[in-house]
Amino acid sequence: MMDEKFERHEIDMDLLNKYLEDKDYLKLKNQIQKYNPVDITDYIESLDLKSAMLVFRLLNKDDSIDVFSHMEKDHQTRLLEAFSDKEVKFIVDELYFDDMIDLIEEMPAGIVKKVLRHTDKSERNLINQFLNYPEDSAGSLMTIEYIELRSYYTVRKALEVIKKTGVDKQTVYTCFVTNEKKTLLGFISLRTIVTNEPETLIEDLMDEDVIYVHTDDDQETVADVFKKYGFVVLPVVDNEKRLTGIITVDDIMEVMEQEATEDFQIMAGMSPDEDEYLDQSVFNLAKKRIAWLLILMISATFTGSIMTHYESLLGQAIILTAFIPMIMDTGGNSGSQSSTLIIRGLATGEISTTDWLKVFFKEFRVALIVSVVMSMVCFIKTMIIDKVSVPVGLVVSLTLIFTIVTAKLIGGMLPIIAKKLKLDPAIMAGPLITTIVDALSLLIYFEMAHVALGL
Amino acid sequence: MMDEKFERHEIDMDLLNKYLEDKDYLKLKNQIQKYNPVDITDYIESLDLKSAMLVFRLLNKDDSIDVFSHMEKDHQTRLLEAFSDKEVKFIVDELYFDDMIDLIEEMPAGIVKKVLRHTDKSERNLINQFLNYPEDSAGSLMTIEYIELRSYYTVRKALEVIKKTGVDKQTVYTCFVTNEKKTLLGFISLRTIVTNEPETLIEDLMDEDVIYVHTDDDQETVADVFKKYGFVVLPVVDNEKRLTGIITVDDIMEVMEQEATEDFQIMAGMSPDEDEYLDQSVFNLAKKRIAWLLILMISATFTGSIMTHYESLLGQAIILTAFIPMIMDTGGNSGSQSSTLIIRGLATGEISTTDWLKVFFKEFRVALIVSVVMSMVCFIKTMIIDKVSVPVGLVVSLTLIFTIVTAKLIGGMLPIIAKKLKLDPAIMAGPLITTIVDALSLLIYFEMAHVALGL
Repeated sequence: MMDEKFERHEIDMDLLNKYLEDKDYLKLKNQIQKYNPVDITDYIESLDLKSAMLVFRLLNKDDSIDVFSHMEKDHQTRLLEAFSDKEVKFIVDELYFDDMIDLIEEMPAGIVKKVLRHTDKSERNLINQFLNYPEDSAGSLMTIEYIELRSYYTVRKALEVIKKTGVDKQTVYTCFVTNEKKTLLGFISLRTIVTNEPETLIEDLMDEDVIYVHTDDDQETVADVFKKYGFVVLPVVDNEKRLTGIITVDDIMEVMEQEATEDFQIMAGMSPDEDEYLDQSVFNLAKKRIAWLLILMISATFTGSIMTHYESLLGQAIILTAFIPMIMDTGGNSGSQSSTLIIRGLATGEISTTDWLKVFFKEFRVALIVSVVMSMVCFIKTMIIDKVSVPVGLVVSLTLIFTIVTAKLIGGMLPIIAKKLKLDPAIMAGPLITTIVDALSLLIYFEMAHVALGL
Repeated sequence: MMDEKFERHEIDMDLLNKYLEDKDYLKLKNQIQKYNPVDITDYIESLDLKSAMLVFRLLNKDDSIDVFSHMEKDHQTRLLEAFSDKEVKFIVDELYFDDMIDLIEEMPAGIVKKVLRHTDKSERNLINQFLNYPEDSAGSLMTIEYIELRSYYTVRKALEVIKKTGVDKQTVYTCFVTNEKKTLLGFISLRTIVTNEPETLIEDLMDEDVIYVHTDDDQETVADVFKKYGFVVLPVVDNEKRLTGIITVDDIMEVMEQEATEDFQIMAGMSPDEDEYLDQSVFNLAKKRIAWLLILMISATFTGSIMTHYESLLGQAIILTAFIPMIMDTGGNSGSQSSTLIIRGLATGEISTTDWLKVFFKEFRVALIVSVVMSMVCFIKTMIIDKVSVPVGLVVSLTLIFTIVTAKLIGGMLPIIAKKLKLDPAIMAGPLITTIVDALSLLIYFEMAHVALGL
């Protein structure tokens, strides 16, 4: 996963295991706290429950919370099950709110009960509110640990607030300015605060052009805003523009990766799934794949009926069948190339539906170049390698030109049409394009053969 | 590109255009400075050169540099060509070093000359050093505007340094601690500095477990480190562990998007390209697509020769040809599904080559479920819709089982083998898998028919 160069940062698991075996817990404790919590997590996840509990209990408070929040959910579950009530309470108290919500969403009911026992009523209300935000919305991504300042504070007062409350906040580098109704008025960076004089008022320094998202905005929209403006944190507001939370860039990097993964899955004809491949059950993996395969198989009936329709023609020149796989594959591949570029362009925002005419002409011209080169190579190949007659070679080569041009235009246009119809453009990828282009390319092929070879 | 909700953050271009037409430059100046530089960039890029220059000159110093660095390179070029010497000098002086390097790398020679005229000798040496870092390396991504502290500084002294030099730095939130040889000793967050007492020494507060990358590390490795640890900035060191630059998370988000785009392109059988689709020439787009299409077309010769080999069998039962597209497509689609999941899993680090046995068995079991369901539906379809004889229906349905299982195992294994051979797993995607599976599925089909139908 990592370049070998990164070994140097990584935890020396052998050494830790040695200390663990020797029961030299003091050395283990001293050694482990030298490492980054992310690496400590990897180590603890590699241990059996008993050792994992032991090592976890050796960590200092800060590290233990960091380590816990980095763990995979099944590892969190096994620890929570084994924890004493006091330890569960510590975790509940110290965890960032967004991590706690994730925990509650993904844990078995028994664990959730154990966790909620340590929250008070107002906290449970807040948890319920957060659990109600739609999946993949800004509300479901946000956390409540932000620094809130008032516009009438001085720099000195602001720094005092940050000093006093900052340690528990997910970020102190961007502070948000609100009024007594919690309406978002502006933001100010810690950089601006520390580089100004103590008596300056926050309202004279804050930036009122604050870019924010709504609790019900989709996570893809949120990721777009992060990418466009290069922020590391974004405020989230409700319908009355009241500040309700913040989203940090590390969560957005996960969203970006997840959205790309979903596109890959859809484009390969699967229902998207957030879970990791190795963690998914065989049955679930099969279920995600079967729907599209069935749809595409049934659709291929149409292609089959074209074959049947030209049965007598094929019977007279069985040599024509030898080129069917090549023509079908080339058509499918040409169409997939175009649709992939357009789907990805639509996803990253480079291409919009208003560009359809530009895309059409671009694909048309690209297709002309590609198809002419392909068909020339193909003709030479049919003459030298396949050793067929010149008319057959010409039919095959000319079919390629029409197939490639058609495939590229269809591949270029269908994702844009899907987007226009508010469908996910990613469904218009290789598998579907191939099925459509198959039927068309065979029609072109047989009609060409019919006319040119007089069959 | 953006959700309609985001219109509210966006610049009111009509209003700005109105002021521009009315030559009401004072109102234009006052209005435009309310917007985010990213949005101002969009606006200026929409104008002709004369208006663009005019609006650009109305911006305050900070905004103008931000706007300039956000511009596409062709817009930067046209402005630099039109700028006075004084304006070019201002840009050169104020631009972050990484943006300047990008500028120099991408501008025409005439502009580069104009830009370099305003740098002194030591700066030109540094520029040359940066230009020599390999493309897509950490060195080529980094910038030099970081805060460097000494371990013997007090918190008070550190805050003074930050106050004095911080405004020109890309980030002040993570400061790096070095010795007089510039060796990286540790890092300290601004949060830690502001929440501690003025007389505390930096060496007592700094974190020595500093995670860094090397100038020659690949950008994909750098992105992996960012994702793994959730950093917003990473230090870059040379071979003597001397601090030479920093990389910030906004540049890494671009890298992540670019790496995903490249994988999409390779997986659709194209040579990857960083440039945007609409910006690329038709000739370049054609060139990127043609190589794989040719390779795959030539490879399909093998499939064709299988068809030729079974010519007499096909001649006796021409009905068999009707199912060839369906079998080929189902095989290709099944294989693509598996290869896509594995390629993506390898790219995100979820799957490693040591997981090959797990992948093999998982794909085998998934393939069994999928293929049995598919073949039952297929058999019913051949009976009801295609109305073929039972033996033909059985041959087609059984072929499907073997095809799907083979396709999924090949699709699951080839990316891992590619990775093991230090090839890019992304080449083992749909197009190549389809070509391989085509040949195999036809072999299975004809052999089945040969045995079962006695042809």
